Amino acid sequence: MTSPAPFVYAPGVPVECHTMNQPRLAITLGDPAGIGPEVIARAWGQAEVHAEAELLVVGQPEIMKRAVALVGGSAVVVECREPDLARSSTQHMPCLAAGSADALKVPAGVHDARGGQAAYDALCAATRLALSGQVDGIVTAPLSKAALAAAGHDYPGHTELLAELCGVDDSAMMLYLPSRPGVGGPAGLGVVHATLHMALRDVPHKLNTARIVNCLRWADDAMRRLDTDGRLPGPPRIGVCSLNPHAGEHGLFGDEEQRFITPAVEQGAAAGIHVAGPLPADTLLIRARDGEFDAAVAMFHDQGHVALKLLGMHRAVNITLGLPIVRTSVAHGTAFDRAWQGTAEFAGMIEAVRVAARLARRAEAAPR
Amino acid sequence: MTSPAPFVYAPGVPVECHTMNQPRLAITLGDPAGIGPEVIARAWGQAEVHAEAELLVVGQPEIMKRAVALVGGSAVVVECREPDLARSSTQHMPCLAAGSADALKVPAGVHDARGGQAAYDALCAATRLALSGQVDGIVTAPLSKAALAAAGHDYPGHTELLAELCGVDDSAMMLYLPSRPGVGGPAGLGVVHATLHMALRDVPHKLNTARIVNCLRWADDAMRRLDTDGRLPGPPRIGVCSLNPHAGEHGLFGDEEQRFITPAVEQGAAAGIHVAGPLPADTLLIRARDGEFDAAVAMFHDQGHVALKLLGMHRAVNITLGLPIVRTSVAHGTAFDRAWQGTAEFAGMIEAVRVAARLARRAEAAPR
Repeated sequence: MTSPAPFVYAPGVPVECHTMNQPRLAITLGDPAGIGPEVIARAWGQAEVHAEAELLVVGQPEIMKRAVALVGGSAVVVECREPDLARSSTQHMPCLAAGSADALKVPAGVHDARGGQAAYDALCAATRLALSGQVDGIVTAPLSKAALAAAGHDYPGHTELLAELCGVDDSAMMLYLPSRPGVGGPAGLGVVHATLHMALRDVPHKLNTARIVNCLRWADDAMRRLDTDGRLPGPPRIGVCSLNPHAGEHGLFGDEEQRFITPAVEQGAAAGIHVAGPLPADTLLIRARDGEFDAAVAMFHDQGHVALKLLGMHRAVNITLGLPIVRTSVAHGTAFDRAWQGTAEFAGMIEAVRVAARLARRAEAAPR
Repeated sequence: MTSPAPFVYAPGVPVECHTMNQPRLAITLGDPAGIGPEVIARAWGQAEVHAEAELLVVGQPEIMKRAVALVGGSAVVVECREPDLARSSTQHMPCLAAGSADALKVPAGVHDARGGQAAYDALCAATRLALSGQVDGIVTAPLSKAALAAAGHDYPGHTELLAELCGVDDSAMMLYLPSRPGVGGPAGLGVVHATLHMALRDVPHKLNTARIVNCLRWADDAMRRLDTDGRLPGPPRIGVCSLNPHAGEHGLFGDEEQRFITPAVEQGAAAGIHVAGPLPADTLLIRARDGEFDAAVAMFHDQGHVALKLLGMHRAVNITLGLPIVRTSVAHGTAFDRAWQGTAEFAGMIEAVRVAARLARRAEAAPR
């Protein structure tokens, strides 16, 4: 792990021009070799994203100019040095320069240390803006872990790097699908991952009661904040997946359910969370899809990712829980094989902005 | 593990009255406390199942009489002692008595050793009918592992018990969805499980190259047999899931991909199987849903089950691969909480009969 590099913009003094009704969000450019820039450029052309928030891109402005040209966009990229001066619209793209101009030399579709460094610098800059209150949240475009590692920043993913930048010991990824007919409850469907980027063989050793209780609290808090219209009839209903098939079949296939999942469910319930489990994942996730639960806690990566991506690959939003800042991301990767063709699906970026704006508006809602 | 109990019907001499165009299938009654009997009774009323095969129920005839009455069916349950004398129709339900009359005393919706014994006896009887060639395949209604264990038969599931009854060392569960618009290829979508009923922590230790190669061969064979209409344009396209997130991210999150999944894929390809992988499960299963693959090999229970149940809970069919007999099952369980109300969903039973009939018709197709 390396510590954050210094970044190049002139930090401004936090100001009060951003209101809770129209939050200001910083969007990181991600790896310049991937589909991040074009996805931002395509989403930028949609009036609906500007109705949600004041937006600001963080990264090399020249790359965004290329991306806007690639997708035939009409936005003018305007370099700004103070986020509070940014005024965004479909025609106006404020861009706060972060990182070195080396990023401009990165070829499309390849793992390149300079691309990894550019993604890293943009993320650090955006995170600091959020930590200092100059923006109300950040939305991140995808980065390449290989390029990040090539640049000397060895993290299993965005989530872990963000936790370090924010100085927190524990955080979790929620994959979230906004509410739509046939999927989830009235506030959508979130799945929090109790473990994430690690070998499957390590999962049983990394899980413990405290971690699962944290995931429960975060899931409860996030679903309350995401319920902006007050459509949940009661507290969010949260289900906890079992680790083992058939919830361990009464101890026949593993004892982790008894050892730490059931105790976590009991602690969560005692803290006032509406929680059930452990339930077999192939039962719980179908019931959640059908609206019986608002959120689920998955024990490992594939439990949550297979379900949420099947239910809405292009609309899924990645939310980092447990940070002192609001952070969302698209759920897809850099897609190097399709990058800089101007055709990448951008619905996920629109949803990521929308969800970040919603969370930022409700950031004052105290966590349980 | 216990050896099969003797069963009570008078075994007949294998006869040639069943043809490959109209296979004869034995349907086991499953646990009498669960939804098996009513699901069979409801499916029996559908003319389409009788168009697929000659059918025969194996279990206590009195229980089937109760189930037919419960669902308001019109079939007359006729006890038969020789499967080759059975002639089935919506109005005529041949039933071969297996097990003890104790099963009649089992209350609805409870784990009861007598229910477990009844399910066990029916399964043993049906399996022997298939092994002796008196039926062309078996379709099983759900049993309760707890009731089975209470009766002294301690197996993690149907699949493992069948393997023992058939005397095979290795077999695998495929969950299969028949072809329909938007899901899978022209022959449907099958997911074979390289491991199944075991603690997640044991999965990495149970996997090995030979096992995965067996799953590949079975998947290839099954999809060829399920392609009754010859709609596959080439050999079945099979994808292999990675064990770890992101296929291990080049060794960062586990090395099982390099150690035995990639070698298995290479061996499969060398044997002429059209195979790709290891691919992250959350990518592969979406591509399979979208028709890019005909089958997938999942490394563990939840990878396959979460996906297939989300894609078609009520239409999924469980197929046991690697047995010398054709065996399918509904993908759901005993549903004790809803048993003997006459309302259980029976689409899965219809599909299980249809798929068994298709496999039986193509049983002559030699495995690779």
